[in-house]
Amino acid sequence: MALGREAITTAYKTLQDSICTAISEADGKGEFASEIWERPGGGGGDTRVIENGAVIEKGGVNFSAVHGALPPKIATALKASSEEFFATGVSIVMHPENPFVPIIHMNIRYFEMDNGTWWFGGGIDLTPHYINQGEATWFHNQLKETCDQYDLEYYARFKNWADEYFYVRHRKESRGVSGIFFDRLNEDAEKKSKEALFKFQLAIGELFAPIYTRLMTDNKNKEYTNLNKAWQMHRRSRYVEFNLVHDKGTKFGLDTDGRIDSILMSLPPSTGWPYTQSWPENGPEMKTQKILETLYLPK
Amino acid sequence: MALGREAITTAYKTLQDSICTAISEADGKGEFASEIWERPGGGGGDTRVIENGAVIEKGGVNFSAVHGALPPKIATALKASSEEFFATGVSIVMHPENPFVPIIHMNIRYFEMDNGTWWFGGGIDLTPHYINQGEATWFHNQLKETCDQYDLEYYARFKNWADEYFYVRHRKESRGVSGIFFDRLNEDAEKKSKEALFKFQLAIGELFAPIYTRLMTDNKNKEYTNLNKAWQMHRRSRYVEFNLVHDKGTKFGLDTDGRIDSILMSLPPSTGWPYTQSWPENGPEMKTQKILETLYLPK
Repeated sequence: MALGREAITTAYKTLQDSICTAISEADGKGEFASEIWERPGGGGGDTRVIENGAVIEKGGVNFSAVHGALPPKIATALKASSEEFFATGVSIVMHPENPFVPIIHMNIRYFEMDNGTWWFGGGIDLTPHYINQGEATWFHNQLKETCDQYDLEYYARFKNWADEYFYVRHRKESRGVSGIFFDRLNEDAEKKSKEALFKFQLAIGELFAPIYTRLMTDNKNKEYTNLNKAWQMHRRSRYVEFNLVHDKGTKFGLDTDGRIDSILMSLPPSTGWPYTQSWPENGPEMKTQKILETLYLPK
Repeated sequence: MALGREAITTAYKTLQDSICTAISEADGKGEFASEIWERPGGGGGDTRVIENGAVIEKGGVNFSAVHGALPPKIATALKASSEEFFATGVSIVMHPENPFVPIIHMNIRYFEMDNGTWWFGGGIDLTPHYINQGEATWFHNQLKETCDQYDLEYYARFKNWADEYFYVRHRKESRGVSGIFFDRLNEDAEKKSKEALFKFQLAIGELFAPIYTRLMTDNKNKEYTNLNKAWQMHRRSRYVEFNLVHDKGTKFGLDTDGRIDSILMSLPPSTGWPYTQSWPENGPEMKTQKILETLYLPK
């Protein structure tokens, strides 16, 4: 029997559970609160939020499975002939309290239409407030190792995709140190079975907890100053700009009349846009800024 | 001689000056810093920012006059056959420190293309953190009195336009208590001369300083609590959402490769998106929320 909606949503829910357990354990204080919600047009979700933990100031591990009539905006964007859609996924953003712990984002999703079209999408990317080159390399190596188990071309291909996707055009800088991003993976495009693609996607999802709990543990006790905190607020403001201006997942959520508090769970607990800000010359803030401005150069 | 670019930009600059003087005087402490900038594709502007005043925490009174090749995105949106454009305007947003002083926005703009098409646009709207019905009525009466001097249909027509424009669809609430909004006013559409339309527009611009200095003076000494401040941060976050997700002026700025710090000057100095927030039942916060949810009901 072909891999269907039920098997996929069950696996996603299991992943959500195990990630929440791992993050909560690594945090040591914060626990996830669950909110089960229903979408008026069909389906619903389970939004799990951790707030004011010892490490995580605000984070969400969201599961959703929605279905119904394909909204006109989405149909146009997809040039779709279908009338019904089904979409399920797990979506994560973590905003740590300590500026030396990076922000992280992970998403895996499955989409299908009643004309038989389906695909998988997803990715993990890292947004350090302060870029630590060793850590960024380690992060990418983790992604590469897992990708390589499924297809030796995946890592390079999906890293390039992330580099481009997470480039904040209006600021001419990258959101963070990138990661991997993939979309519309299906049998025809990849010459792989649905089962094989799903296994790869789940492997990426399962990589999230070991990666991020290590980044939490390694950095959570680092001392920081008011300057570090101000820089964190500044980097968070760019995160807001990316998510509200460019992010396709956010747009999809708004266009499908999704649960707004779950969609915008990704936004930081505090941030701001003071007009005049300056950072010490040759300090770590400007070093990070320089890297973000040169990490990816759009064509 | 027909009213040309030079006369319009001169009037806009004069207005910018007089507004800065009035706001700075009413603030009593803050002064505007000016930054003259050039746009690589043609033209430039004068961004005036006030920060950490006694009343205004962050505010901008921006003038710009840009020209050059019409960017493809804009051409498509306008279904324009033209290849060159000229756009000038004055744009204001004020974020006060005291939650009982409202946020305000004002904009007047002029746009023309080399095929001879031109129009005026603009408006003023008010975003109180706490809605004071008497004050909102007074504000609207001020707008109506001025509109009525030019056309008895203007106020109702432009208020409806603002009601619709400043409705935050993804939140199902209005941004504030609305105001007036108008766009694409020209000879053909309005059966009025260019001079008459310009006079009306300038009268709206000149209304800004007397309106806002009064709102500053009336409210700046009101005492406030941490709860009031938290509510202000919350309302500010909705302001960010509107500006980054819906606002056409912001989109136009980003699409024309405008000066990013001037375009996003509208964003508040501090805000945030904590997930769990609650407000006292039947308190003034929920009263304001209720009004915002019922002020305008979209078709």
